[in-house]
Amino acid sequence: MQISELSLRTGVPIGTIKFYLREKLLATGTVISATRAEYSEAHVDRLNLLRVLLGVGGLSVSRARQVLAALDAPPVSIHEVLQATHAALGPHVAVEERQQQHARDLVRRWGWSVLAGGSAIDQLAAAVGALETAGFPELDVVMDRYALAMRELAAADVAGVPNECPTAAVRYLVIGTVLLEPLIAALRRLAQEDAAAQRPRSTAAERHSTEDRGVS
Amino acid sequence: MQISELSLRTGVPIGTIKFYLREKLLATGTVISATRAEYSEAHVDRLNLLRVLLGVGGLSVSRARQVLAALDAPPVSIHEVLQATHAALGPHVAVEERQQQHARDLVRRWGWSVLAGGSAIDQLAAAVGALETAGFPELDVVMDRYALAMRELAAADVAGVPNECPTAAVRYLVIGTVLLEPLIAALRRLAQEDAAAQRPRSTAAERHSTEDRGVS
Repeated sequence: MQISELSLRTGVPIGTIKFYLREKLLATGTVISATRAEYSEAHVDRLNLLRVLLGVGGLSVSRARQVLAALDAPPVSIHEVLQATHAALGPHVAVEERQQQHARDLVRRWGWSVLAGGSAIDQLAAAVGALETAGFPELDVVMDRYALAMRELAAADVAGVPNECPTAAVRYLVIGTVLLEPLIAALRRLAQEDAAAQRPRSTAAERHSTEDRGVS
Repeated sequence: MQISELSLRTGVPIGTIKFYLREKLLATGTVISATRAEYSEAHVDRLNLLRVLLGVGGLSVSRARQVLAALDAPPVSIHEVLQATHAALGPHVAVEERQQQHARDLVRRWGWSVLAGGSAIDQLAAAVGALETAGFPELDVVMDRYALAMRELAAADVAGVPNECPTAAVRYLVIGTVLLEPLIAALRRLAQEDAAAQRPRSTAAERHSTEDRGVS
């Protein structure tokens, strides 16, 4: 297909496609004359992925290039795809060596095998540092609880990653990170409202009896 | 104590304290002369809370005023404190009526009792809308999984809220929302990396055998 049809198929304006071609985010088509090139289904897939990365993903062109580079360098395991998407998505926070070491110790305590050079460990380090500075009580207990829950959920998350092609996997992981994180935060707030509604006037005595009943 | 000692005790500059007094975020002290007022421990508590709200909480003065108003209007249950903090913290997103209805239906399906006029339901509605637009597969299954997990975690969250005084509860909830949400996002990413590491080259066959082994 020609560039005009590629534009129609993907909803990406021709000028934008030409920009992606210049930036080498999109491979050049097969040249069929001095002014025409032929594009394939692979170009459609790549453009759809670019829309996700630069759109909901909020990635810069250089970060998107990182993700695409990981995709284009076989072999691509889900692990490698995760590494590239997490590294590219950010937020990229600067943390002290001491804080990062603390985060590494936590991850080791949970027995997790995480990626070297990933950005998530720095995000964990920054968040833990802020909570410690704020004097959040029983932080270790709360973190262990969430770590355990997230690890169980992650098994299902990873099982849900499409494995028929790397492009589909990246698309799923970008959306499943960028858009699911605010969803999970909203669910947590609503769940807390429900949990609080079950014990509207909490005294120490009432709290114990509520806990005994358990939470279904 | 005088304003200078109040400033020393809390680390809040005198000029800032005067600003809070003018904005009625802080009650005026007991006037003891034309130029002097006496402040109490209640002022220290209030200033410490204000630092959390305006600092890590990132609240505007008018949003902070909302939280304080909820605190000052007895009776204060954890439910009411949650309502005020969630409403004040935002993000405040505009959603269509249809999207909000969808979010309400979800919450009803989970059997949750949530707050009328809260902001979390709009956040849920916006996130669900974005995921649907992006064509995220099996969204309902994933949401149910996370909703169930968050509800279990919320019971422990709410049990951990200090209930000896409303100020401590608000402080805990603000920090536990603003600072724990990025922590949870980081934990989720790291947990996914570990889950993916357990199945580095996922084929359909391998995936099944990995699932059979379960996740500890």
